[in-house]
Amino acid sequence: MALLLDNQFNDLPPDKVIDTKLFLEAVSHIPLFFDCLGANVFSIIKSDINGNITKIRAVYMKDPAKYVTLQDIVEAERVEHAAEWPKVGATLALMWLKRGLRFIQILLQSLADGERDENNPNLIRVNVTKAYEQALKKYHGWIVQKIFHVALHAAPYKSNFLKALSKGEEVKEEDCLANVRQFLVNYTATVDAIYEMYTNLNAELDYTV
Amino acid sequence: MALLLDNQFNDLPPDKVIDTKLFLEAVSHIPLFFDCLGANVFSIIKSDINGNITKIRAVYMKDPAKYVTLQDIVEAERVEHAAEWPKVGATLALMWLKRGLRFIQILLQSLADGERDENNPNLIRVNVTKAYEQALKKYHGWIVQKIFHVALHAAPYKSNFLKALSKGEEVKEEDCLANVRQFLVNYTATVDAIYEMYTNLNAELDYTV
Ligand SMILES: CCCCCCCCCCCCC/C=C/[C@@H](O)[C@H](CO[C@@H]1O[C@H](CO)[C@H](O)[C@H](OS(=O)(=O)O)[C@H]1O)NC(=O)CCCCCCCCCCC
Ligand SMILES: CCCCCCCCCCCCC/C=C/[C@@H](O)[C@H](CO[C@@H]1O[C@H](CO)[C@H](O)[C@H](OS(=O)(=O)O)[C@H]1O)NC(=O)CCCCCCCCCCC
Repeated sequence: MALLLDNQFNDLPPDKVIDTKLFLEAVSHIPLFFDCLGANVFSIIKSDINGNITKIRAVYMKDPAKYVTLQDIVEAERVEHAAEWPKVGATLALMWLKRGLRFIQILLQSLADGERDENNPNLIRVNVTKAYEQALKKYHGWIVQKIFHVALHAAPYKSNFLKALSKGEEVKEEDCLANVRQFLVNYTATVDAIYEMYTNLNAELDYTV
Repeated sequence: MALLLDNQFNDLPPDKVIDTKLFLEAVSHIPLFFDCLGANVFSIIKSDINGNITKIRAVYMKDPAKYVTLQDIVEAERVEHAAEWPKVGATLALMWLKRGLRFIQILLQSLADGERDENNPNLIRVNVTKAYEQALKKYHGWIVQKIFHVALHAAPYKSNFLKALSKGEEVKEEDCLANVRQFLVNYTATVDAIYEMYTNLNAELDYTV
């Protein structure tokens, strides 16, 4: 679990405002998560998420003092790109990134909660499917949904997945899941806060790809 | 066809050596080709190819005088990254880019040659499948091959595809195809030359993703 636990997300302040720099640092380790899934096909998803992060970072770098929080970025773009907003810039990148983050959150939570297919206890398909249905499905047209079902067959066994999360170390399943639970505390709070911000700013879109 | 014909590839010199700058300029319009396919799902392929081009350009920009030809780049990397080469840097990016270019070449050639499914003359599935089988299939594992077959259902009708290639102008199918044939002359010669170079330098790999 070192992979995740080495890169804990920060505590949110009471007003749930997210510091851009700390967020970018924490989230920059997320693409590695897709390596834990094993199969090469997932590297294309890793690139997509990497692209989101790169786009947000590029905006931040243009003026770190102006973009101290993620909300500063989204609000500035609402003014600067009034015509296309929110389907533009870092606002769009974060819109999609948060869905990928939510996917990971639900997948890990489902594993931590012990949800499983009793007939195939070493498969994670039920957990991946739950995460997909809640985080992404509604933003995907039928072609991408079908592609998901094909890609599901490349999902790793639970034992291999947990081992990869632990950077290949042989840890007991229960120890690994305890670490996952620990990781999920700040992570979930951060993802929730981004979703809340998108709702409050009316920045959410529901077009499908 | 303006889209393609506006951005003709250059004549190759007799020694078939490819000028890096001219190549990057011509190839930078290729990702737009994937917009002609219509469906959003193809934007992920556009990003992959864009990534290849960005990677090659980044190497070129580090020292344009040193990397005048594509071969200069591949040969320099063979020395600099002896351990990982050819699965590294611009050598890897160009290895994959040429496959995408070949895919487009075979697809357009097949349309120009009038190959079609007599029962569904307005579909391009036979042409896309031919291009896929010759250019990409052997580099894809069974999961990605299955994904291809799903994605095939998002391929546009021939009439819409040809219209998109002509930048949405209403041109006669025969005029559009004449332009495609014209485009293919230098384009095919360039792609062939890159393949030859990979063979000669022993830079080709056949791992699957
Ligand atoms: C050659 C043969 C094949 C032919 C193939 C055809 C096409 C294959 C298509 C595969 C789809 C792969 C998933 C990627 C989907 C992406 O299209 C979406 C939207 O992606 C967003 O799009 C925006 C514009 O609308 C901006 O460009 C965003 O970019 S911006 O930064 O520029 O603003 C970008 O992230 N992201 C998503 O849906 C996010 C996905 C997140 C993670 C999902 C985890 C799933 C794990 C599953 C485990 C079983
Ligand atoms: C959330 C739900 C979904 C879950 C989804 C799961 C995954 C979906 C996977 C879809 C696969 C899409 C096709 C992309 C495949 C790419 O993986 C490959 C290899 O890509 C290369 O990989 C290298 C490392 O091995 C380097 O990173 C290269 O990058 S580097 O520049 O860094 O060196 C990179 O281009 N490119 C390819 O196969 C090239 C494809 C070319 C064009 C094909 C046209 C096809 C048109 C078809 C029309 C019907």
